[in-house]
Amino acid sequence: MSSTDLKAIEWIGHENGYLKVIDQSQLPHRRSYFICRSVTAVYQAIKTLKVRGAPLIGITAGYGFYLGAREIKTSEYSKFTEKLTKLKDYLCSARPTAVNLSWALERLYQKLTPSLKVSQLKKRLFQEAKKIHHEDMISCARIAKNGARLIKNNYGILTYCNTGILATGGLGTALAIIYQAKKEGKKFQLYIPETRPLLQGARLSGWELLQKGITPILVCDNMVGRLMQEGKINIVLVGADRIAANGDTANKIGTYTLAILAHYHKIPFYVVAPSTSFDQSLKDGTQIPIEYRSENEVTTILGKRVAPEKVKVYNPAFDITPRRFITGIITETGIMKL
Amino acid sequence: MSSTDLKAIEWIGHENGYLKVIDQSQLPHRRSYFICRSVTAVYQAIKTLKVRGAPLIGITAGYGFYLGAREIKTSEYSKFTEKLTKLKDYLCSARPTAVNLSWALERLYQKLTPSLKVSQLKKRLFQEAKKIHHEDMISCARIAKNGARLIKNNYGILTYCNTGILATGGLGTALAIIYQAKKEGKKFQLYIPETRPLLQGARLSGWELLQKGITPILVCDNMVGRLMQEGKINIVLVGADRIAANGDTANKIGTYTLAILAHYHKIPFYVVAPSTSFDQSLKDGTQIPIEYRSENEVTTILGKRVAPEKVKVYNPAFDITPRRFITGIITETGIMKL
Repeated sequence: MSSTDLKAIEWIGHENGYLKVIDQSQLPHRRSYFICRSVTAVYQAIKTLKVRGAPLIGITAGYGFYLGAREIKTSEYSKFTEKLTKLKDYLCSARPTAVNLSWALERLYQKLTPSLKVSQLKKRLFQEAKKIHHEDMISCARIAKNGARLIKNNYGILTYCNTGILATGGLGTALAIIYQAKKEGKKFQLYIPETRPLLQGARLSGWELLQKGITPILVCDNMVGRLMQEGKINIVLVGADRIAANGDTANKIGTYTLAILAHYHKIPFYVVAPSTSFDQSLKDGTQIPIEYRSENEVTTILGKRVAPEKVKVYNPAFDITPRRFITGIITETGIMKL
Repeated sequence: MSSTDLKAIEWIGHENGYLKVIDQSQLPHRRSYFICRSVTAVYQAIKTLKVRGAPLIGITAGYGFYLGAREIKTSEYSKFTEKLTKLKDYLCSARPTAVNLSWALERLYQKLTPSLKVSQLKKRLFQEAKKIHHEDMISCARIAKNGARLIKNNYGILTYCNTGILATGGLGTALAIIYQAKKEGKKFQLYIPETRPLLQGARLSGWELLQKGITPILVCDNMVGRLMQEGKINIVLVGADRIAANGDTANKIGTYTLAILAHYHKIPFYVVAPSTSFDQSLKDGTQIPIEYRSENEVTTILGKRVAPEKVKVYNPAFDITPRRFITGIITETGIMKL
């Protein structure tokens, strides 16, 4: 498989087919695939971070909803929808912060109508799941072009976590801008913080960028201040898991710190996300639910214990960056200045 | 050995004795000791971070200088001092940032005088090395009392890296304040960032604090912004590797980021260090040499590879915090407000 074929997610076959995702928990050591033929497999894939990244979670959940629907053995509309309502809640509970999950499920759910047979509805859900996937791919390409305008020759660029092929149905959000800038012949140096606790920067972005012919400079998360102090960074591009109506943004833990650092060093700080990551129902970031994850993620790194037994741990998976620290939000429709 | 007996460094016996240090690179998995009977062993202990922490590096180097002097087979003063000059440069090159290293070596070197026999000079160097060790222990106790005044009941306290028993000849600098506050019956919650790349927070402070009956909350370095945003931190206490004449402070990489975060959240930020960490010969922090360390420290965690081959790495071991972000410096003589 050549690097241009790299895909985080693929539906194989037609309606009776299955979902094939790269098991991201195994990268960069092994490129292995995880096959989902049931909604429980999809739930597991999302819950255990085999797939992650807000847009990719949305796409995966869409296919998962269809897989769940496909399993339902009834031709009665009311029984069918009753089961699907439970299915939606089940999938939605896999991870709370990324709004793309509930957004995709709701979009499929809205396709249900008593005027069609259950068999027709299943077909319709399949088509809609494929459509969400396809639209995200297009969206990535548009985001890339919109954002690449901001990249000037010889820029030092800081990104965070993984926002590329491994986070979306296409080339990515923030990383797609990097790929586009390269395609346009721009010279730059990309810096990637490792992104503790799960090291998506080191493990995933590092791997993906090398596949795409870009050699990033890896730093520990606590080195970003010094990078900025030394004048090495001209722009910061991060992703988003949920953007409230006022622009406050939930993203990977550590994003808030990067935003304050950028603000202090007068470096433009952009959030890059498809419009599917917006949640207009929330007034501001204080309303975004934050997922707290297991202590093991902090005390153990890739199976190696790093802390003594009996320490307590605080492990929020996300933080909220207030809009006042965000220069603008780059979406598929353009750049919103905040 | 009870927790109160915990010592990072110990000279065993008299002039013909040897140096025994805890091999900190093995913590928290094993408490093993590294025995130094030669100056090369001491150089290795410092270089490979078996001992670390600015005051402890100074003490270790002092004993190392004596061990080197003890080995010299001459009774001629000029030959003796010639060899010691080389020895000083050799030991000094083990690590460039902590000023305590060159300070301790210089202090011993200044004890040389042609009015004494070489055998008497060796005895004198031994006594001076012991004196440096003893003075640091006293200094820690004074720092602890001076700093504990700042700790109020129910404080959330953030510290960084390891600044305790494992970093000094006594109870520590910033961590000594924690021990003193506990002794005074104050209630508080201590937060310890893991301190990548070498995890001195998770591995060393986590271990040492539990030995002393304090259960800290461990966080990844990138979680501190959120801790502060949530109002969980009332004061920040960090150590120092070298303090320039104007107060600019070199300390473990990531300290600068913590200082900016504290500044933004209006949280008092104190540097805690003995006066032996001051370098009045340097006007400001830009003159402090920064040690850059191996790529392996970032791409590999406790022997486990976390990043793909071929990524580039930037790995400064320290950064410089400008004085304007420092509320004050707590030393053995009191609190200097900046």
